Amino acid sequence: MSSIYWQEDIETLPRPQLAELQLKKLRESITRALRSPFYGKLYRELNISAESIKTYDDVRKLPITTKDDLRACYPFELLTCPKDNIIRMHCTSGTTGNPAAVLYSRHDLDSWANLMARSMFATGARPADVFQNMSGYGLFTGGLGFQYGAERLGCLTIPAAAGNSRRQIKLMQDFGTTIAHSIPSYLGRLHAVFLENGLDPIRDTKLERLFIGAEPHSEETRLRIQEMFGAKAYNSFGMTEMNGPGVAFECSYQNGMHLWEDCYLLEIVNPDTLEPVPDGEIGEMILTTLDREAMPIIRYRTRDLTCIIPDECPCGRTSRRIDRIKGRSDDMFIIKGCNVFPIQIERVLMRIREIGSDYLIVLDRNDEGDTLTVQAELKSESFTDDYKQLDALRRRIANDLRDEILVTPAIQLVGPGELPKNEGKAVRVKDLRA
Amino acid sequence: MSSIYWQEDIETLPRPQLAELQLKKLRESITRALRSPFYGKLYRELNISAESIKTYDDVRKLPITTKDDLRACYPFELLTCPKDNIIRMHCTSGTTGNPAAVLYSRHDLDSWANLMARSMFATGARPADVFQNMSGYGLFTGGLGFQYGAERLGCLTIPAAAGNSRRQIKLMQDFGTTIAHSIPSYLGRLHAVFLENGLDPIRDTKLERLFIGAEPHSEETRLRIQEMFGAKAYNSFGMTEMNGPGVAFECSYQNGMHLWEDCYLLEIVNPDTLEPVPDGEIGEMILTTLDREAMPIIRYRTRDLTCIIPDECPCGRTSRRIDRIKGRSDDMFIIKGCNVFPIQIERVLMRIREIGSDYLIVLDRNDEGDTLTVQAELKSESFTDDYKQLDALRRRIANDLRDEILVTPAIQLVGPGELPKNEGKAVRVKDLRA
Ligand SMILES: [Zn+2]
Ligand SMILES: [Zn+2]
Repeated sequence: MSSIYWQEDIETLPRPQLAELQLKKLRESITRALRSPFYGKLYRELNISAESIKTYDDVRKLPITTKDDLRACYPFELLTCPKDNIIRMHCTSGTTGNPAAVLYSRHDLDSWANLMARSMFATGARPADVFQNMSGYGLFTGGLGFQYGAERLGCLTIPAAAGNSRRQIKLMQDFGTTIAHSIPSYLGRLHAVFLENGLDPIRDTKLERLFIGAEPHSEETRLRIQEMFGAKAYNSFGMTEMNGPGVAFECSYQNGMHLWEDCYLLEIVNPDTLEPVPDGEIGEMILTTLDREAMPIIRYRTRDLTCIIPDECPCGRTSRRIDRIKGRSDDMFIIKGCNVFPIQIERVLMRIREIGSDYLIVLDRNDEGDTLTVQAELKSESFTDDYKQLDALRRRIANDLRDEILVTPAIQLVGPGELPKNEGKAVRVKDLRA
Repeated sequence: MSSIYWQEDIETLPRPQLAELQLKKLRESITRALRSPFYGKLYRELNISAESIKTYDDVRKLPITTKDDLRACYPFELLTCPKDNIIRMHCTSGTTGNPAAVLYSRHDLDSWANLMARSMFATGARPADVFQNMSGYGLFTGGLGFQYGAERLGCLTIPAAAGNSRRQIKLMQDFGTTIAHSIPSYLGRLHAVFLENGLDPIRDTKLERLFIGAEPHSEETRLRIQEMFGAKAYNSFGMTEMNGPGVAFECSYQNGMHLWEDCYLLEIVNPDTLEPVPDGEIGEMILTTLDREAMPIIRYRTRDLTCIIPDECPCGRTSRRIDRIKGRSDDMFIIKGCNVFPIQIERVLMRIREIGSDYLIVLDRNDEGDTLTVQAELKSESFTDDYKQLDALRRRIANDLRDEILVTPAIQLVGPGELPKNEGKAVRVKDLRA
């Protein structure tokens, strides 16, 4: 096992052959999709079949599939095989109406576990590693997705699930955890519990790698996490509609996420025109499953914004890399005529040493129009009641933010731990405008 | 797939061959166990090796292993192979000190998934079934244990996890769930949520089977659950130390749980003398793993009380059956000199039509000595403020209980839903005696 690849042949396949493979698998996916009630009706009306795809450009002839389509198809309208062939269901956690449900055949779970193992292996994870999964389990794909992948790879897998920080720390210490998976916002809280208990995660654990994903976060947040834990943090990308985690993952170079193109067809488009954007330019990601048997999804609007990183990766993998998720096309808010993504604000805040990892963006309205307030948490060591000092800090943050987003926000500094905590994913924006 | 057996050859193996197989696997387990630090030291001191086991009676020469031993061995002292061969850890949820941790090799997870599939198949579950697992996931074995087993069998598996009753009901209805797994105390709450939403689980779901376990419960509770859901409820037995669920399970005859003797060696002993008790007589179960590679446990005191059901099962399976768990040898409390198990009180309460499924046993002390109070929940339809009627009911319950436990308790009747609810397993006894 001296190779740096989990599946060398497929991971280093020259791009012309990869493109051929993709077109072949796309044709198969269309043939399969035609068996589902949803695509069957749609494609027959549009006269689409496997023969419609002759070149890579033909992909753009296929209609887009949206989350609303998936919801309307709930629970079984996208299924291409008898229900008896399905062995698992996951679904999104939407608050109202039907969720988007994904149905997996045995082949699909096997293919997913393999991609997860390939992803983890690419970061340097090996069977001797101890992997602690601090993700929620159940219908959320971060639990079982990483579990099956880590077992496939052969790690000692600790299904710690989310929460209970003191137990997480005990497990890390007792079992010598070398890799942990978490949403990035939880790692700040976990670090605080280490300190509260007189422990230092660098000195008192064997952590070498962290897998972070499921929440957009900035490079500055990644660097902070790496500093807090003395471990490399690798970005992970996935979504329930595309199986779950394991769609794209950083390799040991940490320079963007290899999107596994033998299993997913990648497009980046302008969210308004749906026209492709050039490599390096930010747009919305459109993904097509190429290896899903029970429920292919073709040209899915992910709403996630990213760009293709143009150059080749020194690791030798030929699959293209996407940059960290910049936000969701529906996360963007407009304030005083400017388009702002929460991640832009985070990036500025995380560069400021005095500020902790928690923040909240509040949008409101007064007589003069929209207001933007950024609430940011001071680190314990920066906490002071020297008004002059705090005021100077506030002005510095407001200036830095104006340079980035072109709007000057009001800044509120709060003590450590004073911002409201949420279960699960962090809430970063509160829009109080009617 | 017309067979009623998952593995006909092994499930119907004549008992003499089964005994031979057990002794062979026990010898192998001892040889393996000798490689672990704990058994290695212990067995060498006692001069125990595979050759010590020539007949079935020789089993009793082997020392008992206790939960305290497991805790003292935490995390790795029972391991018989390099850590690199381990791919999962589960542990018990003890509140203080170290938990008991179980480490699984790939063979061990495979063997466990197979036993779970065999168990579910024995009740009549088939690949066309839709299985909703309402168990907690993560370190608790009821989640991943049933998940892997149901996928092995080929059911459409919905990893709903615990709690969120309205979503449980929506999933049951939308996916046509035919089998659900739950702790018995949750099913009463779930039924109440069905009613609150104007739904009838019998009319409005396709439920055919329920798997219930992890909490001692009476036959009366099972019958009530069956009535509430219009589905057959099958008892399930397992414990983390023995992998998790899938140690013993009822077949379609629902007449006690087949303990899978090709994988576990069963003894029932007097908890005081550790001498075997005759079939049909209640004692403490001692279990030995026969198919565990990474971490064999030999002669484990489970603390669970049950008896062997003497006659053969009409299903043709040759593995012996154990009766439902009567309680734990350390659950028993002594009141006014009488030994009482909580399950005895439950059995009496569940026979009384006016009483709902929740109850609480409170032990306290006053000037005259120990007091026993039983708090029981009235069903909505039995709720009244007619004092005379309530008093008559109280007296009836107290009399029935005295006949069963030889002590007359004070009875407090409370309205539906008024007893405190606990996350996870129900708390049935509160001992306030200093
Ligand atoms: Zn790379
Ligand atoms: Zn039977």
